[in-house]
Amino acid sequence: MTIPLPQGYRLNGVHCGIKQQSQQEDVTLIVSDSAATAAGVYTQNVIRAAPVELDASRTPANDIRAIIVNSGNANACTGAQGDQDAIRMTQMVAEVCHIPAESVLVMSTGIIGTLLPMDCVQTGIQAAAQDLASSLQHWEAAARGIMTTDLVPKMSGRLVDMELGPVHITGIAKGSGMIGPNMATMLSVLLTDAPLDADTAQSILTEAVQDSFHCISVDGHTSTNDTVLLLANGHNRPGTLTAKDEVSLRQAVKEVCIDLARAIAADGEGASHLITIDVAGSTSCADAHKIARAVANSPLVKTAIAGADPNWGRIVSAAGYAGVPFDPTGLDLAINGTMIYQAGTPLDFDAEQLSALIRDTFETSIVITLHAGNAGARFWTCDLTNEYVHINADYHT
Amino acid sequence: MTIPLPQGYRLNGVHCGIKQQSQQEDVTLIVSDSAATAAGVYTQNVIRAAPVELDASRTPANDIRAIIVNSGNANACTGAQGDQDAIRMTQMVAEVCHIPAESVLVMSTGIIGTLLPMDCVQTGIQAAAQDLASSLQHWEAAARGIMTTDLVPKMSGRLVDMELGPVHITGIAKGSGMIGPNMATMLSVLLTDAPLDADTAQSILTEAVQDSFHCISVDGHTSTNDTVLLLANGHNRPGTLTAKDEVSLRQAVKEVCIDLARAIAADGEGASHLITIDVAGSTSCADAHKIARAVANSPLVKTAIAGADPNWGRIVSAAGYAGVPFDPTGLDLAINGTMIYQAGTPLDFDAEQLSALIRDTFETSIVITLHAGNAGARFWTCDLTNEYVHINADYHT
Repeated sequence: MTIPLPQGYRLNGVHCGIKQQSQQEDVTLIVSDSAATAAGVYTQNVIRAAPVELDASRTPANDIRAIIVNSGNANACTGAQGDQDAIRMTQMVAEVCHIPAESVLVMSTGIIGTLLPMDCVQTGIQAAAQDLASSLQHWEAAARGIMTTDLVPKMSGRLVDMELGPVHITGIAKGSGMIGPNMATMLSVLLTDAPLDADTAQSILTEAVQDSFHCISVDGHTSTNDTVLLLANGHNRPGTLTAKDEVSLRQAVKEVCIDLARAIAADGEGASHLITIDVAGSTSCADAHKIARAVANSPLVKTAIAGADPNWGRIVSAAGYAGVPFDPTGLDLAINGTMIYQAGTPLDFDAEQLSALIRDTFETSIVITLHAGNAGARFWTCDLTNEYVHINADYHT
Repeated sequence: MTIPLPQGYRLNGVHCGIKQQSQQEDVTLIVSDSAATAAGVYTQNVIRAAPVELDASRTPANDIRAIIVNSGNANACTGAQGDQDAIRMTQMVAEVCHIPAESVLVMSTGIIGTLLPMDCVQTGIQAAAQDLASSLQHWEAAARGIMTTDLVPKMSGRLVDMELGPVHITGIAKGSGMIGPNMATMLSVLLTDAPLDADTAQSILTEAVQDSFHCISVDGHTSTNDTVLLLANGHNRPGTLTAKDEVSLRQAVKEVCIDLARAIAADGEGASHLITIDVAGSTSCADAHKIARAVANSPLVKTAIAGADPNWGRIVSAAGYAGVPFDPTGLDLAINGTMIYQAGTPLDFDAEQLSALIRDTFETSIVITLHAGNAGARFWTCDLTNEYVHINADYHT
């Protein structure tokens, strides 16, 4: 990997025993050398885990120094003790890093309804703090430390040439479905050494999430713990961004978020295909998004792609029930670049050849065009395989 | 089966070759001896098959004499030729039954995007018309003639003692998911010998569908062909219903619809459990319905039940993302009568015993109580098994 690494951050990921079945890292500690502004976007689930409530109360912020993440236990549905444990995690970091507890944010992912083993957590925080560094190896350990059922760590970054000088924006993420033991979660941390005020950081992050993490679906099940955090410490680049620099950074943050969102969809449980759904020619982006989401969430579309079946009937009918009125006689559909449905009518096409193409490539492209306007949306999902059912049915709480 | 059969209707189901892979019945003809009022409820999909468009233009009506149904081909996404074929089916029935073509309704279910083999259809209509009768055997043949991937024919009825005298309301239905080849569909026909004006028939049917067929989900994929029809011929019971009789009939129609809807959920592709989801204590029925639907459509809930896992985390988190605000600390959850989550907190329970109970019984009950109001809703779905993926991934268009 050649990923640009932002300056002024030190990270680590260690195994402390929250994950009892493996030796995989289960605590990640991220420290900014100076106070960073911080923005957060959180789950839309009514039921929010303790760390989500805590972070939501602390962001946007101007004075964040660290993020502590544990995997293996979501600290969700854990009542007052869970709230105290989330706060206690910030205090543990404060003690070993000599920073204020209020300057620490928390993320958790894993089993819900079980109290955190706080002794393990303390051991993990101490161990992680002893070897904080900014190397790629430390970034990778940090990316592994937030994983649950993910098969691969997820990381992406950009180097942005700004008028202020070069800055970095780099993120890690985890998530592969709302899977076991009780559920998984989508978490991401983005770090930049650009200077940003808290409101601008929040605006940039909210916009980037809208076009990335809000546009993916593995099984449509929104977790109690979903969290995306952005820290900006302005390391070696104090000052204020020019308008042009802000546009550049905004674009780079969005690109990194899209990379990570795609990586989550591609790593969906049991996935054998990453599916990109484009809806073009809509009268509004919101309508295009609804149609793309309906297609992405259809088990019939997802099983069709798993079976390498260019099944236009399932796709157009899913578009039809998205709750968006459109003229069915204006609908075109292409799969992997082959037009198979035009102006509401199926075309003749070589189904065997297209099926072979779907089967032999990991990425499948579905493009729906409505010819009603100029707005569009893009959504990512994965196919639905026997392996998904196996992973999620054959586990017992 | 001891099912009350309404008077003044003759039915039949025959095989004519639309289904090429089997000798299963694929044409059902239903004839009322006298003009019947008719009501219809149709798919909410923007893309509607030709027979749906035709029936929707003809109902509510006062003068319906017959319904012709074919399975194996949905006559959907078939353009102008499809529209003509649907009309031609009504003309074929008119010719053999000596009734007006405008008094015939049509339903189709099966493959989409392929023109109907009209020679087969004509042969089927002629054969069915030669042996129309009102026996239970003929009802069963009619119920089989509308099936696609259903494993069992679906039929239910009630005898209603009204002030006007005894009347019958009996229905057949098909559906087991939006399955292959391209999709299946939910179809149902309800016949009563009670007298009803067209507007009352429509009102009774709309209300009954709201609490039955609109409350089931196998895979959340709404078909292009979904249709429920109600005929009322007032056979031997001419006149007008009293207000009390109308209430009795309204209740009976709803009960029959619920029976049939449950039967569809129970016959969902690959289903090993019928799941009933009750949401109580909501501030509105619409909100309760949304929460029940979110739980019913969650692949994680459905795989958990397939695995006999009393996984409260997946259920309460699905309730949490239904788009309905509620106080999480007021939520109770019971599975199969065992309270496992109360006032937002998991309870101690014997997970092994409850798991064994789920595994050993076909029906699973999930009851969510919000303690916010007096409104509620009930929803039915089935579990998600490897067999569902097998059925839907291993088919090629």
